[in-house]
Formats: sequence, C-alpha cells, structure tokens
Amino acid sequence: MIHLNAFLMGVGHHEAAWRLPESDPFAQTDVAHFTRLARTAERGKLDSVFLADSPVLFNSVGRRPAGTLEPTVLLTALAVATSRIGLIATASTTYNEPFNLARRFASLDHVSGGRAGWNIVTTAGVDAARNFNLDDLPAHRDRYERAAEFVDVSLKLWDSWDDAAPLGDKAAGRWGDDELIHRPEHRGRHFRVAGPLNVPRPPQGHPLLVQAGSSEDGKQLAARYAEAVFTAQQTLGEAQEFYRDLKRRTAEAGRDPDTIKILPGIVPAIGATEAEAHALEAELDRLIRPEYARQQLATTLRVAPEDLHLDRELPADLPAEDEIEGAKSRYTLIVTLARRERLTVRQLIGRLGGGRGHRTFAGTPEQVADAIETWYRSGAADGFNIMPPVLPSGLEAFVDHVVPILQRRGLFRTEYTGSTLREHYGLPRPANRFARPAVAAVR
Amino acid sequence: MIHLNAFLMGVGHHEAAWRLPESDPFAQTDVAHFTRLARTAERGKLDSVFLADSPVLFNSVGRRPAGTLEPTVLLTALAVATSRIGLIATASTTYNEPFNLARRFASLDHVSGGRAGWNIVTTAGVDAARNFNLDDLPAHRDRYERAAEFVDVSLKLWDSWDDAAPLGDKAAGRWGDDELIHRPEHRGRHFRVAGPLNVPRPPQGHPLLVQAGSSEDGKQLAARYAEAVFTAQQTLGEAQEFYRDLKRRTAEAGRDPDTIKILPGIVPAIGATEAEAHALEAELDRLIRPEYARQQLATTLRVAPEDLHLDRELPADLPAEDEIEGAKSRYTLIVTLARRERLTVRQLIGRLGGGRGHRTFAGTPEQVADAIETWYRSGAADGFNIMPPVLPSGLEAFVDHVVPILQRRGLFRTEYTGSTLREHYGLPRPANRFARPAVAAVR
Repeated sequence: MIHLNAFLMGVGHHEAAWRLPESDPFAQTDVAHFTRLARTAERGKLDSVFLADSPVLFNSVGRRPAGTLEPTVLLTALAVATSRIGLIATASTTYNEPFNLARRFASLDHVSGGRAGWNIVTTAGVDAARNFNLDDLPAHRDRYERAAEFVDVSLKLWDSWDDAAPLGDKAAGRWGDDELIHRPEHRGRHFRVAGPLNVPRPPQGHPLLVQAGSSEDGKQLAARYAEAVFTAQQTLGEAQEFYRDLKRRTAEAGRDPDTIKILPGIVPAIGATEAEAHALEAELDRLIRPEYARQQLATTLRVAPEDLHLDRELPADLPAEDEIEGAKSRYTLIVTLARRERLTVRQLIGRLGGGRGHRTFAGTPEQVADAIETWYRSGAADGFNIMPPVLPSGLEAFVDHVVPILQRRGLFRTEYTGSTLREHYGLPRPANRFARPAVAAVR
Repeated sequence: MIHLNAFLMGVGHHEAAWRLPESDPFAQTDVAHFTRLARTAERGKLDSVFLADSPVLFNSVGRRPAGTLEPTVLLTALAVATSRIGLIATASTTYNEPFNLARRFASLDHVSGGRAGWNIVTTAGVDAARNFNLDDLPAHRDRYERAAEFVDVSLKLWDSWDDAAPLGDKAAGRWGDDELIHRPEHRGRHFRVAGPLNVPRPPQGHPLLVQAGSSEDGKQLAARYAEAVFTAQQTLGEAQEFYRDLKRRTAEAGRDPDTIKILPGIVPAIGATEAEAHALEAELDRLIRPEYARQQLATTLRVAPEDLHLDRELPADLPAEDEIEGAKSRYTLIVTLARRERLTVRQLIGRLGGGRGHRTFAGTPEQVADAIETWYRSGAADGFNIMPPVLPSGLEAFVDHVVPILQRRGLFRTEYTGSTLREHYGLPRPANRFARPAVAAVR
C-alpha cells in the first residue's frame, strides 16, 4: 500500500503561487487556510500533513510570502480540527533542547490522540546560527552527532514513564506508581539530562521519527532512527539507488528495512488535460521574478550573484560537495540537475521555483497516478510526499482526482483502518526500553 | 472594572481534588477537559485562562496527578475551541532561547487572533536545571538578569516586522517591503540574536507580558516589563502594601501605573450555604496524604523531613530569605503564614494543600463576591486570579453564581467589548520601537 503525505506550504510550493488570482497572499499565517488543507487531506485518507521549518527568515520578503507559524503550534490547531490524519512537524536538533522538544511532541501526541511525527533536521545556514548566540554554523558532522544524541535523549524521555505508571487509585490516595517512573540520567557529549519527562508516555509510545537530509551523515542518522524519510529525487534511477542504499543501511543498523518508509517529494501540476496542466505550469513559471531567485541560487552555490548569467549555464568552477557545510544534498542535487540537462540559470530557476529540487510533474490525474505507481512498483519509493504547486486547489485536485484512481488500482486505502500515525504507516507501537519484563509478569 | 482570570490546573488547585468522586484522575492530559474549562470561563466573560508550568516532574507521582501538557501547545488547542478569552502560558527564560519562545508566542497570538499572554518565569529548583545540562540552579540574580535581557530580545523580535511590511502586491510581484523588516542584531551579556523573527508582527503587537514572582528581583522585572502580575497574598494589609509598592516601582520605571494590573490569587470553595462551602473544604483537607506534603514542605524549607513534626510548629532555626536561591517569595510567604497563625505542620499542610500559599476562602457566592469587592475597593488588587479548588465544578460555580453578582454590582463586564487580551485588560497595542515616523508620514 502506498503512503501519501501532504506537504503543506502557504499557498503552494511554487514560489509564484501567491501571485495567482485565486491565492490569498497572507494565507501563510491563517489557521483557517491550514484547517481547510488538513481537512481536505483527511478526506483523501492521506497518511499525514507535513510542515517544513527553519528558525530564520530566509531571503527577501519581496520574493514570496514569508514568516510562518511555528509548526508544533500550527499542528496543534490542526489536531483539534481533524480526527485521523497524521501531523508531522519539522524541528531542529541544533537549536532546541531535548527536554523542551520531547515534551512538545509528547504534548502534541496526547492532544491528537497519537498522530504526531517529528521531522528531525539539523538546520543549515549561518543566518539561523546567528539567531542562537553563534557567529557561524556548527560543522556538518558535529550537527549530526548532536542530532543523534538529541534523538537518543528524546527516546529515553518518552520512555521515562512506564505506560502503567498512572494508577488513579482514589481509594488508596495513590495517583501513580513511583517505581514505574524512570530517571534516564543521560550524560553525553552534547547533553546532560536527568529526566524524567513531565508528561506521561505519548499514546504512540514515541512520536513517529522522520528524517529529510540525504547527505552521508543524514542517511546514517535515518538508518539508525528514522521511520519515514522525505527525500528529493529527480530521476527513477537515482531514486532506486537511494532507496536500495537506505534500506541496506537500515538493515545494517540492525533494523527491519520495512520499518523505514522512503517518500520522495513530487510536485504535481494537475490539469483535466495535458494542455491544461502545462498551461498552469507555464503560468506559474511566467510569474517568477528571476532576480530574487538568482540571489538565492548564488547563496546556495557559494558564488556571487553577478557570476550567474540568466541565459548561460552554471559556471564551471563550483565548490565540491565536501566543501559545503550547509545543505549538502540539496547543493549536489541542484548542480547535478543543471549539468545533466544543460540548463541555463533561467531554466534552472524555473525548475527550482516549482519544487526547490523536488521532482516536478505536469499531467492529467491518470498520468500523475501512473508516475506514482511506476516509481512505487520499481523499488524507488514506499510512497510520496505530495507538494502541490498551488494550495488549496492543487491538493483538492489531487484528493478528488488522483486518489480515487490509486484507490481503484488497489494501491491506496479507501478508509483509515487505524487511528494513530504509526497505524497509518503500519508500524508497531515501540516497547518501553525501561520496561522490566520480569516485574511486569508478576504484576 | 475588575479583571478575572481562571487559573486552570488539572482537576483543581486543591492537591486532593482528584480523589473526589466527581473527578477524572487523568484529566490533566485530556484536551477535552481543558476545552470545557476554557468555554466555561469564556461564558463567564473572564479576561483569560492561565496555565502555570515548570520543565520538571515535581515530587512523587503518588501524591497527585502529575505530567502536564506543554502550555503553548495546550493553549493553541484552546484557542481553536474559543473565540474571545485570553490565553496566558507560563514559560521559562532560564531554559528557553528567545528566538524560539518569541516565535511560539507570536504564533499563538496569530492563531488566536490576538489573545496570547506570556507569564515570564525564571524557574526555581535544581531538578529543572538538571534537565538542561546544568548541575545546579543559576543564581537568583543571574536568572533575573537573563530574564530581563530575554524579554528585551523578545520585544525586539516582535517588532522586527513593521505592521506594514507585508504588501501582497501581486501585480508588481512584490510580496513584502524589505525596508520595513528590521534586524535587531542584539548583542548582550546573555544573548546574541540577529533576527528578524520569521513570523509577522503579532496581532497584539506584543503578546501580553505577565510576571508572577514577588521577590525583589521579581518586582523589579515586573515594574519594568509586566502588564499583569500574579501574586500570592494572604492578608489585606500585605496585599495593599504589595500593590502600593509595585505601582510605585512601575511609576519609577517611567511607566503609567495603570498599565500594570495586579491580580492576587484566590482559592474559593463555594457552597450554596456557608456550611456547604466549609464541608467541601473539610472533605478536601481530609483527603490530603500528609506524608507526601511533608516531604515537599521540607524541600521548600531546606530542612530534613524528619525535622518537621506533623503536630508541632515549624522549627525555629530556618534559613533567612537571602540564603534561598529558589522561589524566594514563596518561601517567605509560607514561613510568615506559619509563624503568624502559629500553625502546626499538619495545619500548614492543609492551608498549602488548598492553595499552595494563595488566599483560600470558603463561603457562599455572595461572600466570595464580597471578598473580591473588598480587596478591589481597598487598593489591594486590580482583579483576581481565580484558582478553583476543584475543576470543572469550582469554575462552573464561580461563573454561574459569583460572576452574576459582580456584574449586578457593576464591577465586571457583562459582554466582551474587545477581541484581544489587551483590549480585555484595557491596554493599548504597543507602538513598534523600530517605526520611523518621518518615513511613515511620507508613505
């Protein structure tokens, strides 16, 4: 069964979506807009909605809608407005403390009845670092080492309450069993956290763990901890290679490779006819202002904006991936795409403006369903992170026209069979690492 | 006009409330329970609901319901379920980063349409410190110095977007005006934060700022920044003295003393008759398990539990307030109360079990209204933080029976006249510190 998430971003993933007549340019801070999106995704029986995040205001506010609500806050509002769909929030391990973040995700899991997921990111970019007492970005390797320890501490905190610790024994005047509260007393290189957490164990045991970086360090973190992976893959061959590699690493880490779901992004421009779909794509690309996009591309590629000529290919002498401390996998993806297809800077900006490096696809609902089925059947994906170029209309088109085709083909659920995000993904509720089976058997 | 907040805490402020037949012992993590409370408070036209917090699991889970949802998460859920009532969350300046917290409160203010308030606390206790990489609690003075800088940074971040920065100009392809985005570039003793924030300026300009410590350092912080102050005051004389002192300090800090609202806590046990009210109080006190409470009292007083004899007064040789690094004002309040009324440890535990040092009062609705009116008219309070001993029944009794009396007396609103928390408190929306009037005039 294919897994489908709705990646929500303001009025759409295409950077010019806000300029369409249908779009509310201020929707990115409007909870009613996101409520409508989440309910649409739930009507389509999707596994989850997903929010990206970075604790920094990127680039110019001239270019596109900027400023977003903090994801655990926004997803809490969506939890109340929905009943089944999963809720995955991005949060940084570099700029948070494990106690606070573990508590927030546990709280979201309680409020939503077991629908929370955490997309673990290490946050690239010096601008974010400068919001947190640093002058420069910590090294890539250090960020990932901290991330692994951060996740480890979080898992210990979520397990610090045995599921059976709350008793509620009014007659005896004994609310909980102190013997079933565990103190992690974690002492590592990056963190010292005594615990226990001050929230009972989450309904899912642990919120679903998601990872989204595709660098070497990112893949190792995913193999060790992630239960779902969001990834940007442009071609079937690359996607198959990534899929095989990550499943292999997961097995090598001692885990069942079926317990990690690999979900490439896809940006589907959907039209009733091919011509309609391509017209939407062309209209969106026409609305891009290339001067803003060139500035961002120059930052990503570590070159001066004036070295990027809109009607020429990228300069030949770009840095190697291992010189990049920021978003390594994104850097490589962009350079590879440009070189492979010999794109001019203007063409590259059009491709990135649509999906920021994710696979873009314009076609009819049948063609979109085919594109999804082909990758799924070819060992390139366990499902997809759907990134509509325009919202809400692109998600409505997907739910109303693509989902029914996938359902008729027997590839996608027609009803939710579980109530938690883990159940949607077919993943078990994790055992508590501190549980003492012998004691439990006696009780 | 009196201001009234509902201080929500699980199934009530009395530590034994969970043992009553009417109480759900697991309500403290149930969003439906809190939704019912918030809607009741809104039905009563109260100014706000308020949640306390500390990033630590206190004491034994045997004693009373433990483990609480993170307040900004829970209040977001309540924001969606209500439309007018203010939403005040406690958050620590010692164990958060200003960028993250300012963003969360800005997000809550957007989601709620301008109803967010932040109760600024510095968090006492070594157990909390040990959840955040520390072996010991930072010194009281250092915590308050950090708190003041934390608030200063937060104010700069909330002001980093001019209200007019978002343009949404589709025709020109210009979403926002970069000239109206300000970079605080804060560099202080505790924080270096470049900014800007990645959320547009909150609907209220700044979320309402609340403060709750009554130590010297706490009062200085309040005088400088707070727009509302929650305080524990046992007697009218002490409350008047606190009120005069804090209004004077606020004036000395160059602010209009009317812009700080002083709100003592009151724990009202309400009965249709006096006898009923006292019977409720007695039943609750009977359900306290003193062995748990003695342990906590010993920790607060920095003595060994075995030095506290249940049927004797407190030991004579307790530390002086200036030796206490934790919750100074709470320490002094407890010792003063015990000495003044010559309470045994058992009696003291009963008084604290009801309201943790706040003023407890048992009586009919008329008597509760009188108690409120007397303090209000005597220059002891601008309003009250209502701490029902049992929830939801104690809040329902207050809203259904005490509020109408206050309304008939012309002391409390019969309808909301504004839509934001600031409007409920009669406070103006703050100007943006970065606004350039000359430029604004030309536009």
